[in-house]
Amino acid sequence: MNAPVISLSRRLRASPFEARSMQGITSASVYNHLVLPTCYESLEADYWHLCEHVQVWDVACQIQVEVLGPDAQAFVDYLTPRDVSQCAIGQCIYAPLTDETGGIVNDPLILRLAADRFWLSLSDSDVLLWAKGLALGKGFDVRIFDPNVFPLAVQGPKADELLGRVLGDSIRDLTFFRFIETVIADTPVVVARTGWSGQGGYEIYLQEPAAGIRLWDTLMAAGQALQVRPGCPNLIERVESGLLSYGNDMTSANNPLEAGLDRFFTLGKSADYLGRGALEAIAAEGIRDRLVRLVIGGEPVINPRTVYAIQNARGEDIGMVTSAVCSPRLEQNIGFGYLPSDNCEQGAAVSVITPEGVREAWVADQHWSV
Amino acid sequence: MNAPVISLSRRLRASPFEARSMQGITSASVYNHLVLPTCYESLEADYWHLCEHVQVWDVACQIQVEVLGPDAQAFVDYLTPRDVSQCAIGQCIYAPLTDETGGIVNDPLILRLAADRFWLSLSDSDVLLWAKGLALGKGFDVRIFDPNVFPLAVQGPKADELLGRVLGDSIRDLTFFRFIETVIADTPVVVARTGWSGQGGYEIYLQEPAAGIRLWDTLMAAGQALQVRPGCPNLIERVESGLLSYGNDMTSANNPLEAGLDRFFTLGKSADYLGRGALEAIAAEGIRDRLVRLVIGGEPVINPRTVYAIQNARGEDIGMVTSAVCSPRLEQNIGFGYLPSDNCEQGAAVSVITPEGVREAWVADQHWSV
Repeated sequence: MNAPVISLSRRLRASPFEARSMQGITSASVYNHLVLPTCYESLEADYWHLCEHVQVWDVACQIQVEVLGPDAQAFVDYLTPRDVSQCAIGQCIYAPLTDETGGIVNDPLILRLAADRFWLSLSDSDVLLWAKGLALGKGFDVRIFDPNVFPLAVQGPKADELLGRVLGDSIRDLTFFRFIETVIADTPVVVARTGWSGQGGYEIYLQEPAAGIRLWDTLMAAGQALQVRPGCPNLIERVESGLLSYGNDMTSANNPLEAGLDRFFTLGKSADYLGRGALEAIAAEGIRDRLVRLVIGGEPVINPRTVYAIQNARGEDIGMVTSAVCSPRLEQNIGFGYLPSDNCEQGAAVSVITPEGVREAWVADQHWSV
Repeated sequence: MNAPVISLSRRLRASPFEARSMQGITSASVYNHLVLPTCYESLEADYWHLCEHVQVWDVACQIQVEVLGPDAQAFVDYLTPRDVSQCAIGQCIYAPLTDETGGIVNDPLILRLAADRFWLSLSDSDVLLWAKGLALGKGFDVRIFDPNVFPLAVQGPKADELLGRVLGDSIRDLTFFRFIETVIADTPVVVARTGWSGQGGYEIYLQEPAAGIRLWDTLMAAGQALQVRPGCPNLIERVESGLLSYGNDMTSANNPLEAGLDRFFTLGKSADYLGRGALEAIAAEGIRDRLVRLVIGGEPVINPRTVYAIQNARGEDIGMVTSAVCSPRLEQNIGFGYLPSDNCEQGAAVSVITPEGVREAWVADQHWSV
């Protein structure tokens, strides 16, 4: 199959960093109607660089939904099983949004900017429409809109060093999942200690799109001696680090319990929320399937376009692989998949059906040990 | 700027026709989380073939939202200023969906399958979330879901001949914007006389994704003597034919009145709908801007990634171009754009600011005469 190039049109919103981030990229996807770079040099070269140095990522596609007004906390609380009342101003929380069946609509990072002001920093679905529809229908007293704020990530072990050069060493005191409002390159930004890698770093929320190139250039200049490069979320690194991708590892057909996202909240918060009845019923009954880490034997796999079925020893379909990649550091294939919850013990053996043949696979723990 | 290739993952839903439609394609986009082919041989070669022969298009990305239940008509009526009560079973209507400000959320084709059953065949936004949010919030008695139905289009002057070979000549009696339920290649399909070109043809809604390749192959075999080819919506042809693209020619920042979509409805239907107050206020005040056809002078333009500004003789920004392309048949650049409504007379001259310099442009009529 030929790999077609992306045709750009106004329908794909422009990232404020595009004039820089598109230089040298070899592949990309579309995410929230924006272009998301997915590879520069090669998946593996990008991976090693990310693990050793520092990268600047155009993740403008992580667009925001702003919720503002007297009912803002009550409304955001209504969208998610996470207890939003526990989120302080200046704090970020990771929160699955659920529909009436408990299905996952999105899994944003929620930033609390003020008592009555939140940004939902989105994965790939039009939550602006979802939230507006619900708020209009339910009569919440909130304004919901796209504030035209675009994140840029600085990720990698030298991210602290890079941001320190730009903002002074006090930025190193910013703790995990906290943010500050500051100025870089003469433009107001929100800087959060977050990011979609396990290598540490920051996400910088640009509020004036016209200053995007200036912000990018400032960071690249500050990182020159640190071997900074343009980068992007890296499939190998994010799977190694156990980061799930909405649309790949969970969809609206999955609930947060089977996806293992209940480690971020406890059911039974005081505020009401959509999907509460469904999630409580699922919890009472016990989940049928569970997302697990898998080590997959054999030659390096490519990331599955179609999901690989998982079979038991009797050749019966019992689950599926949702993401898989060969880790050059672990020197084995690793991935995520769903298995029946009584088949999830570390070391449990299954068969993965790939287009190239059947592979042995084993359930792994958080350190990829089987 | 290098054109990156598209990276495929499970997050981009697979079209049931993909194993065929991806063969020979040179560029593609992403639309409703699916891959949309945008070019095979070249934009111009694809155009001439479409205007002379017949093409089979993978437009699976025009996904459906099904609305089912006692309040189905009332709810669909709530989403749009079009009068849904006037839509007969077996009929399709083109209907902009509006938000509370009158902004366009999507512009689906609505198919009425039964008194209490509709499909909204979508342009590029997650209307499933929008509709579910509104229905949940407002308490409409409807089920709203994605029925996993994927369209394939047969477009071009020989489309009647091709479908006649597959379904018998009685299919030629199907009138514009009507559909029937029938069977092709042993799979149940809905066949509508619709399609996103001005060349005539059909859209075939596949209900069993596993039968997608069989359906594709059946159509290609039947069209062999007609020089059938895989194709896709063609930028040149759709602009020539005056077909607007959601995300390009209108967004949620535009209302149906300024986009000229009010030719499809009259304000003031009896059923209540979202955005009614806003649209009536806009209509009473008179629209400020209007979408017009433009002829743009000079060398062939490429489709604008960033919108071209439109200026008046005093060099003031007065509007923007939303789509533009060089028509090989008209031998001139044509496009759409917004201009102040008092500057929309046929022949009115303006300046279009492209990256390659300033071009003269003129407001054109429905036949591209200036």
